[in-house]
Amino acid sequence: MTSVQTKGAPARMNIADLGEPPQNLTGLFAIINKQLGTTRESRKYFLKCLIGDKTGQVPARMWTIDESTYASLPTDGFVRLEGQTQAYQGEIQLIISRIEAAEPTPEQMRDLLPASSRPAPEMFAELTAILGTLRHPAMQALAKAYLDDAFLMDQFRMAPAAKSMHHAYLGGLLEHTLTLLKLADSICPLYPKINRDIVLMGLFLHDLGKTRELVYDRAFSYTDRGELIGHIVDGAIMLHDKAQQVMREQGVRIPGNAMLVLQHIIVSHHGIPEFGAAKIPATPEAILVSQLDNLDAKTTMALAAARPDRANAIDTGGNFTEKQWALDTKLFKPDPLA
Amino acid sequence: MTSVQTKGAPARMNIADLGEPPQNLTGLFAIINKQLGTTRESRKYFLKCLIGDKTGQVPARMWTIDESTYASLPTDGFVRLEGQTQAYQGEIQLIISRIEAAEPTPEQMRDLLPASSRPAPEMFAELTAILGTLRHPAMQALAKAYLDDAFLMDQFRMAPAAKSMHHAYLGGLLEHTLTLLKLADSICPLYPKINRDIVLMGLFLHDLGKTRELVYDRAFSYTDRGELIGHIVDGAIMLHDKAQQVMREQGVRIPGNAMLVLQHIIVSHHGIPEFGAAKIPATPEAILVSQLDNLDAKTTMALAAARPDRANAIDTGGNFTEKQWALDTKLFKPDPLA
Amino acid sequence: MTSVQTKGAPARMNIADLGEPPQNLTGLFAIINKQLGTTRESRKYFLKCLIGDKTGQVPARMWTIDESTYASLPTDGFVRLEGQTQAYQGEIQLIISRIEAAEPTPEQMRDLLPASSRPAPEMFAELTAILGTLRHPAMQALAKAYLDDAFLMDQFRMAPAAKSMHHAYLGGLLEHTLTLLKLADSICPLYPKINRDIVLMGLFLHDLGKTRELVYDRAFSYTDRGELIGHIVDGAIMLHDKAQQVMREQGVRIPGNAMLVLQHIIVSHHGIPEFGAAKIPATPEAILVSQLDNLDAKTTMALAAARPDRANAIDTGGNFTEKQWALDTKLFKPDPLA
Amino acid sequence: MTSVQTKGAPARMNIADLGEPPQNLTGLFAIINKQLGTTRESRKYFLKCLIGDKTGQVPARMWTIDESTYASLPTDGFVRLEGQTQAYQGEIQLIISRIEAAEPTPEQMRDLLPASSRPAPEMFAELTAILGTLRHPAMQALAKAYLDDAFLMDQFRMAPAAKSMHHAYLGGLLEHTLTLLKLADSICPLYPKINRDIVLMGLFLHDLGKTRELVYDRAFSYTDRGELIGHIVDGAIMLHDKAQQVMREQGVRIPGNAMLVLQHIIVSHHGIPEFGAAKIPATPEAILVSQLDNLDAKTTMALAAARPDRANAIDTGGNFTEKQWALDTKLFKPDPLA
Amino acid sequence: MTSVQTKGAPARMNIADLGEPPQNLTGLFAIINKQLGTTRESRKYFLKCLIGDKTGQVPARMWTIDESTYASLPTDGFVRLEGQTQAYQGEIQLIISRIEAAEPTPEQMRDLLPASSRPAPEMFAELTAILGTLRHPAMQALAKAYLDDAFLMDQFRMAPAAKSMHHAYLGGLLEHTLTLLKLADSICPLYPKINRDIVLMGLFLHDLGKTRELVYDRAFSYTDRGELIGHIVDGAIMLHDKAQQVMREQGVRIPGNAMLVLQHIIVSHHGIPEFGAAKIPATPEAILVSQLDNLDAKTTMALAAARPDRANAIDTGGNFTEKQWALDTKLFKPDPLA
Amino acid sequence: MTSVQTKGAPARMNIADLGEPPQNLTGLFAIINKQLGTTRESRKYFLKCLIGDKTGQVPARMWTIDESTYASLPTDGFVRLEGQTQAYQGEIQLIISRIEAAEPTPEQMRDLLPASSRPAPEMFAELTAILGTLRHPAMQALAKAYLDDAFLMDQFRMAPAAKSMHHAYLGGLLEHTLTLLKLADSICPLYPKINRDIVLMGLFLHDLGKTRELVYDRAFSYTDRGELIGHIVDGAIMLHDKAQQVMREQGVRIPGNAMLVLQHIIVSHHGIPEFGAAKIPATPEAILVSQLDNLDAKTTMALAAARPDRANAIDTGGNFTEKQWALDTKLFKPDPLA
Repeated sequence: MTSVQTKGAPARMNIADLGEPPQNLTGLFAIINKQLGTTRESRKYFLKCLIGDKTGQVPARMWTIDESTYASLPTDGFVRLEGQTQAYQGEIQLIISRIEAAEPTPEQMRDLLPASSRPAPEMFAELTAILGTLRHPAMQALAKAYLDDAFLMDQFRMAPAAKSMHHAYLGGLLEHTLTLLKLADSICPLYPKINRDIVLMGLFLHDLGKTRELVYDRAFSYTDRGELIGHIVDGAIMLHDKAQQVMREQGVRIPGNAMLVLQHIIVSHHGIPEFGAAKIPATPEAILVSQLDNLDAKTTMALAAARPDRANAIDTGGNFTEKQWALDTKLFKPDPLA
Repeated sequence: MTSVQTKGAPARMNIADLGEPPQNLTGLFAIINKQLGTTRESRKYFLKCLIGDKTGQVPARMWTIDESTYASLPTDGFVRLEGQTQAYQGEIQLIISRIEAAEPTPEQMRDLLPASSRPAPEMFAELTAILGTLRHPAMQALAKAYLDDAFLMDQFRMAPAAKSMHHAYLGGLLEHTLTLLKLADSICPLYPKINRDIVLMGLFLHDLGKTRELVYDRAFSYTDRGELIGHIVDGAIMLHDKAQQVMREQGVRIPGNAMLVLQHIIVSHHGIPEFGAAKIPATPEAILVSQLDNLDAKTTMALAAARPDRANAIDTGGNFTEKQWALDTKLFKPDPLA
Repeated sequence: MTSVQTKGAPARMNIADLGEPPQNLTGLFAIINKQLGTTRESRKYFLKCLIGDKTGQVPARMWTIDESTYASLPTDGFVRLEGQTQAYQGEIQLIISRIEAAEPTPEQMRDLLPASSRPAPEMFAELTAILGTLRHPAMQALAKAYLDDAFLMDQFRMAPAAKSMHHAYLGGLLEHTLTLLKLADSICPLYPKINRDIVLMGLFLHDLGKTRELVYDRAFSYTDRGELIGHIVDGAIMLHDKAQQVMREQGVRIPGNAMLVLQHIIVSHHGIPEFGAAKIPATPEAILVSQLDNLDAKTTMALAAARPDRANAIDTGGNFTEKQWALDTKLFKPDPLA
Repeated sequence: MTSVQTKGAPARMNIADLGEPPQNLTGLFAIINKQLGTTRESRKYFLKCLIGDKTGQVPARMWTIDESTYASLPTDGFVRLEGQTQAYQGEIQLIISRIEAAEPTPEQMRDLLPASSRPAPEMFAELTAILGTLRHPAMQALAKAYLDDAFLMDQFRMAPAAKSMHHAYLGGLLEHTLTLLKLADSICPLYPKINRDIVLMGLFLHDLGKTRELVYDRAFSYTDRGELIGHIVDGAIMLHDKAQQVMREQGVRIPGNAMLVLQHIIVSHHGIPEFGAAKIPATPEAILVSQLDNLDAKTTMALAAARPDRANAIDTGGNFTEKQWALDTKLFKPDPLA
Repeated sequence: MTSVQTKGAPARMNIADLGEPPQNLTGLFAIINKQLGTTRESRKYFLKCLIGDKTGQVPARMWTIDESTYASLPTDGFVRLEGQTQAYQGEIQLIISRIEAAEPTPEQMRDLLPASSRPAPEMFAELTAILGTLRHPAMQALAKAYLDDAFLMDQFRMAPAAKSMHHAYLGGLLEHTLTLLKLADSICPLYPKINRDIVLMGLFLHDLGKTRELVYDRAFSYTDRGELIGHIVDGAIMLHDKAQQVMREQGVRIPGNAMLVLQHIIVSHHGIPEFGAAKIPATPEAILVSQLDNLDAKTTMALAAARPDRANAIDTGGNFTEKQWALDTKLFKPDPLA
Repeated sequence: MTSVQTKGAPARMNIADLGEPPQNLTGLFAIINKQLGTTRESRKYFLKCLIGDKTGQVPARMWTIDESTYASLPTDGFVRLEGQTQAYQGEIQLIISRIEAAEPTPEQMRDLLPASSRPAPEMFAELTAILGTLRHPAMQALAKAYLDDAFLMDQFRMAPAAKSMHHAYLGGLLEHTLTLLKLADSICPLYPKINRDIVLMGLFLHDLGKTRELVYDRAFSYTDRGELIGHIVDGAIMLHDKAQQVMREQGVRIPGNAMLVLQHIIVSHHGIPEFGAAKIPATPEAILVSQLDNLDAKTTMALAAARPDRANAIDTGGNFTEKQWALDTKLFKPDPLA
C-alpha cells in the first residue's frame, strides 16, 4: 500500500460542501463498508461503498474495477481517489474514476474522521486545570498518575465517547468528560455535603475504559474486549492497577473507602443494570456522577438532533426530527420563542 | 375546641432534644394517627398515637382516657398536652397525663410541622431575582402574572415538594424549585443552544400543580384532586388559565410555540410514563428540565439519608443506611476521604 | 393552485374498483407522500407517490415531469389527474400522464378520504338521543354546553378516532363514541350500583381532545399539540373551560365530585401509564369507561382485520392475517361454524 | 365427630349482626385457621382461630381447652359452639366457652360459607334459557352434553369464581358466567360480524375448569391440581373429552374449526401470558370473550370495594378505600352526583 | 402433477456444494416462497423463488414462464428443474430454464428438507434403551404405551423440534429429546433426591405435542392448531388420553401424583409465562426438566451459530456472528485456545 | 473477653435435637441479632436474641441482665451460656440464666455455623483431581497459580456460596463449584465442539470473587466491597492479577482470547443484566457455564425446600412449601411415585 503525499495539493473539497452535481472530487478520503456489486444488465462487477471525511459521507460507485484493485482496498480505511458527483434518486452519488489505498498521517486522519470542533490540547489543558483544584493529597496523587500516563492520555484525547449516539467523534470522550467536570464545578457548591474531590475524580475516571472498548483509527466500532468485557469492568481494572502504581511510585496510599467509592462510581455510573451498571449507584457522589453523565448525554443528543450546526442536506420537513432512539421520541425543532 | 395560649410559657422542649427518660414534656404538639387500644390484662381502653413537632416524632400512650376526651381529639392535628417519657422496648415512649385539642396559629404551626431550614421569604426573594433575568417580554409577563398571584404564591412558599421522599417539609416546594433555578443558572451557559428563558420558566412552573395536589396544614397527604387528577395535569390547566390572564390583563400574547413547549415541559417532566409523565420530554429544554429535576431529587434524597443533619436517635450501626426505595438501594455512609 | 371543477364529469372510478390493467383513470384524488425519483438508466427525474380516495390507495409514477409542476403539487393533499394502470411486480401501478394540484370542496373531500360507512348526521342524532336520557340536571346542562358548541361538534362529527389502528377514518371518532354509548346503555342495567349518568358523560367526553390532537383535512396525522400535549390532557382542559361556561351561561354548578370524576375519567381512560393514562382508573365508572373503550377498540380492530368488508385485492392466503401489532398476534380468519 | 342437630333451635345470630359487646353466640359456625396459643403469664395453652359464617368472620379465643378437644377440631371446617363477645384492641373478639366439631348438611353449609345473594337454581335457569338460543346444531348438542352432566353442573352451581378477588363466594362462578352471557346477549347485536354462538359457548365454558381448580367445601383454596395444572389447561381437557362424548352419544361432530376456536377461547381468555393465558386471543370471538371477562371482573371488584352492600364494621374513614391490588389503585368512594 | 423418477439419474449436486458460477443444476429440489415478478424494462412476468435441499437454499429466477406453468407450481413444495448458476450482487443466483411440480417419495423428501445428521432409527433405539431403565412399573407401562403408538412414534422420529431456532430439521425433535435423556442420565446421580423416573418420563413427553404443532412435510411452519392451542396444552391432552389407554389396555393405574407431576412438567417446561409456560415449574423434577431443556437449546444454538459444520458461503468476516435473537447477543467465534 | 475452654465438657446438645421443654442447655453457641427489650409490666430491661449452632436457631430471652454484661456481648458472634427451654406461643423458647462472650477456635466455629455435610478437604481433593484433567498448558498453569494460592484457597474452602438462598453454609462455595465441575465433566462429551478446558476453568473461577464479597466468620453478610463492587467485577480483577502472576512466576502467557473469554465468563455468568451480569454470555462456553450455574442453583434450592434432610420442627402441613422467592413459586412436596 502506497503512502500518498498530499503536500502542495490544492485544498480538498469537504463532503459537506458538495453542491449541485456534477462536481469533481480529488484527494484523500475515508472509505466505509466496501462491497462488490453486479450490474443487473451486464452482470459486471462494480465497487459500492461510502466515501467520507470528518464533515460527512456520500454513497459512491466505481462501475469498472479490476479484481486486484478491489482486493487492495480496505473494507474500512482510507483511500486516495478521483471522481465526479451525479444525482441519483434525488440524492448525490459519487462516481469514482480512480482509486487506491492510502495511509494518512495522524494529522491527515483528523481531517478524515469526524472530530470535536474544539482542539484536543485546549480541552485537555482545561481539564488539567480543573483537576488541579483537587484538595486531598491522595486524589492529587491519583490524578497525577493518570495524567502522567502519556500513552493513556493520548488515547483519552483521541477517543470518541461512543460508537454512535452522543459525542461519537474524535475527541468526543475528552469533550464529554470536560463538560462533566465543568458541570460539577458549577454544581457542587449547591450541595455543601457533597465530596467535590470524589465527584471530580469519579467523572474523570468514569469512562476511561472506553479507550479499550472502542476502535477509532479507521471507523468507530467496538473492540473484541469492548464487546466481551466492556468499559465498565475495564475502567475498574485500570483503577486497580493505577492505585498500586501510585503506592509504588509516589508512596501514596489511596484511602480504602476512596478506592472503594471510586471503583463503585465506575461500575455504577450507568445507573441501572438494564443500561449496563454492575451496581446501582449507592453513595451521594455515585448518584451525582450518574445523573450528570445522563444529563449531559441526553441534552447533547437532543441539541444535536433538534438544532444541528449545519442544516441537513435534505430536511425531512415538518416540525419534528426523526425518532431519536436513545431519547425514545421525535424532537420538536422550532425555537419556542423565535 | 379551645384555643390554647402559649404566651409567657417556658420554651417547649423539641422532640429531637429528648434525652434519657424520664423527662417531662408540656406544650403544643402535633398528634398523628390517633387510635384506641385496650390493655390485655384489664381490657381497659387507652389512647395510642404519635406525638410530634417539626423536629421529629415519638410514640405515645395515655393509659386512662374517657370517651368524650378521646372523641374530641383530631386523628391528625394538634394538641396541648402534659406527659413524661419512659423507656419501652429500648426506645423512648411518652406517657401522657393530660391532653386537649388545640388550634395553633399559623406561626405556631410552623413550629409543629417539619419545615425547610431556610426562611421562605429569603428563598422567594432569591427566586424572584433569578426570574428577573428572563429576557423575552412574554416570559417576563408570564412570570409576573404568577408572581403577582398572592394566593398561589402563599401556597407555593408553604407547600412541601412531596408527601414523603425528598423535600417533604413546609417550604420544600420552594426550596426544590429554587435549587433547580440556581442549577439551571449555572449550567445553561455550558449549552449555548439551550433557550435559557424556557428552561427557567419551565422549572418555575413544573411542580406548581403540587399546591393543589397536597394537603399540608396538619399532615402531608394527597388531596382527592391530587389522587384523581394529579399535579401534572393541574399544572397544565393552571398555565392555560394564566396565559389567558396575561393576555387579558397585560395585553401580552404568549407565542404559540412557547405555550406549547411550557405546557409540554409540565406534562413531561417526570420523564417516562411509568413515573407519571403524560408525554416523553421531546424538546431540548424539556429534556434538561426533566434531568435537572431528577438530579436534584435524587442527590437531595441521598445526602439526607447518608449524611443527615442530626444523627438518628437510634443508629442501626454498620456502614449502610436502610434501603432507600426511591433510590432502589441502601447507601454507603462513610465519608470516603475522612 | 387552480380549483378544478368536476361537475358534469362522468363518475370517477374508485381505487377499490380497479381491475385487470390496463385501465384509464381520471379525476380528483388524494396524493400521499410525493417524492422525486430518478430512473437508473437515464438518470432522469420522475414523480413517485401514492394516489388514493376513500376506498384505497395505489402506487403511482409519472415518468416525465418538469420541475415547476413537481413543485406545485402538495406532499400530502389533493390533485386532479389522468393516467393508466399497468402491472408491476405482481401489483397494480398507476402511470400518470397529466397532473395538477386541486382544492376539493368539503363535499368532494369526503369522497377522497376514508370515511365511516354511516352518515355523520344520522350517528350524531342517535348520540344526541342517548344523551337526552341523562337524569341529573348538571349532567344535562354540561351535555347541552358541549352539544351547543357548533364548532367543536363539527370537528367531532368529522374527526377520525385515530391516525391508524381502529376507526381511522372520517367520522370514526363519532362512530366509536356512539358505539360506546350504546354499549353502556345496554350494559349499565346489569350493574345497578353504577352511576349511568357519569358513565355516559364520561364516554361522550373521553376522546373529545382528539379533535385537537389529529389533523384530518388532507391526511391523518398528529398536530404539534397532539405530539407534545395529547388528547388526554387537552380533554381535561376542555372540560375545565366548559364547566366554567356552564356556570357562566346556564348558571348551573357542576357538583365538585362530578367534575373531579369526569376529569379523572378523561385522564385515566387509557388504563395504565404505559398506554398514556395520567392516572389509573380509580372509580367504578372510570373503570367501566376504560374497559368499554378497550373492548370496542379491540373487537373492531379484530373484525376489520379478520373479516374485512371487501376481500383484499391480494390475499396472502392461509388461515391467518398478518400480525396485528395492536392485538399482538395474527388473527385466525375462518368462520368457525361455516 | 358428632353430627349436631340444629332443628328447633332458635335462629343463630349472624356474624355481621354482632353489635356492642357483650353478646352471647350459639350454634353452627365455620372455623378457620385453628392454632394453639400460650398465655404469656401462665404459659397455658389456649385455642386461637377465626369463627365465621356466610356474613363475615370474627377472631376467637378459648382460654381453657384440653388437648383431645383441640385435636378433634378441624383446622378449617365446621363447629358447634357457645361463647360471648368482648371488646379487645378496639375490635370485637369472641370468647368461646364450649366447642365441638360438626358436620353440617349441604343446606346448612350454604349458611356458613359466603354465597351469592341470588339462588343458584334461579341463576342456572336463566343461563339455560340463554343457551337455548344457540342456533347451530353442533353448539346445541355441545351445550346439552354439558348441561346434562349432573355432577359437573352441581359443581358449577356451587363453585366460587375465585379464591379471593371477585365473586369469591359459593355460586360465584355461576353468577359471573351468567352475567357474562347476559352482557354478550346485549352486546353481540352491536357487532353483526361476531359469531354469537361461539361467544356464548366460549363464555359458558371459559371458566368451567375452576370446578377442578378450587376447593370450596370448607374454605376456598386451590386443589393440588389447581396449583400445578390450572383451570385453563383443565378446561381444554374437559372440552376434549366432552366433544368425544357428543360424537359418541349424540352422533354429532363438532366442526373442526369450532373445536379449535372454543379450545382457543379457553386457553386464551386471560388475555396475556403474564396473567396465565397459554395463547394470546387470536379470533374476534376470543378477543371479545377475554374483554368481557375482564370488564365484568374489574367492574364487580370496583363496585364491591367502593360501594359495599353493608358498611364495613370499621370504616377507615376518608374518601378512598384501601389499595385494591387487582385494580392497582385505591378507589374513590363518594357517589359523584350525590 | 407428474411424479418424476430419479432412478438411474446421476447424483444431484447439493446446494451447499455449489462453487464458482456458472454451474449446471438438474434434479429434484424444494421450492420455497414462489412469487411472480415483473422485469422493470419490459414489464414481463418472471418467477422468483428460493430453491433448496437439505444442505441449503439459493435464490432463483426464471425469466420466461407461462401462466399455466406458474400456476401448476406449489408455493412451498417440490419441483424438478434444470438451470444454471450465475453471480448477482456478489452472491450466487440460479437461472432456471425448465421447471415442473414433483411429488418426491418419503425417501427423496429426506434429501430435500434439512435433517439431523444422525439416522432416526439409530437415535430412536438409543432413546428406547434409556427408557428401558425406568424402574417404576407404572412409568414402564406409560412409556410402553407411547412407544407402541406407531403413528405417533413415526411423527416423533420425523418432526423438527422447532420452526426455526434450534434443531429445526427433520429428526430434530428426536435428537433434542435424546440429548436431554442422555444429559439427565449423566446428571441425576449427582442429585440423589431427584426422582429419575419422573425426570426421564418428563423429558420424553415434554415436547411430544410438537408433532401436532408443526407442519414439516414441505416446509416447517405451524399448524392452525399449533398457532391457537400449542404443543404445551396438546401435550397435556395427549398424556390425559394415554393414561386412560394404559389403564384400559394394560390395567395399570398411573399414581395420581405421578400423573399430576408429569402433566405439570409438560405445561411448565418453558419456565416462565412470557415464554409460554402455563405454570411455573413447582417440583424439583419440573425445575430440572425446564433447566435441561433450556441448557440444551441454548448450547446447541450457540454452537451452531459460532462453530457451524460448514463455513458459510459468504462469511461476514470479523470475530462475531450476526446477532442471535434467541440468545440476545452476537457470538464470539474464535476458538479461545487455538 | 474471656476465651472459654470446652475440653472435657459433656457434648453440647444441638439446637436441632431440642425436644419437649423443659431441657437444660449449656455450652458454646452463636448469638444472632442481640437486642434490648423491656417487660411490659415492670418496665425492666431484658435480653432478646437468637441462639444458634450449625443445626438451627431458637429464640431466647434473659429476663435479668445488667448493663455491662449486655454491652459485653457481640450483636452477632459467639457466647457461652446456660439456660433452659420452655414452650411459648406453641414454639420453643430458651430462657438464659448465665451468658458471656466467647471466642471459639476455628474448629469450634465450624460447629457453630451451618456447614456443608461433606468435609471441605475431601471436596477440595475431588476438585483438584478434575482440574488435573485440563489439557492446555496455559490452563494448567493458570489452575496451578490459583491452587497454589494458599490464602485464597483457604477462603474458597470456607466461604458459603451465598448469604441466603442456595449453598448458604460454610463450604457451600466449594460444594457448589465442585458439583458444577462434575456436571460439566459428565456433560461436555455430549457437545463435542465445546472447549472443555474453558468450561472447567470458567466454572472454577466464576464465583471466586465471592471470597471478597461475603463475610462468614460470625454470620453471613456482604462486605462493603461486596455491596459496592460485587463478586463479578472482583472475580475479573482477580483473574487480571493472576494472569500477570502466571507470566511472572511460571513464564506462561495465557493466550489473549482465552483471557478474554475467561474474564467474559466471569462477568457474564449471571446471564442477564437484571441478575447482575455485566455482559450477556456470548460464547458457547459462557452460555454453558451460565446455564449450568443456574441449573445447579435452582435444583439445589428446590430439593432443599421440598425434600429437606430433616423434617422442619413445625411443618406447615399441606402438600406445598412456603413460596420460594428465588423460584417464584411454592413447591409440591410429595414424592410423585411414593
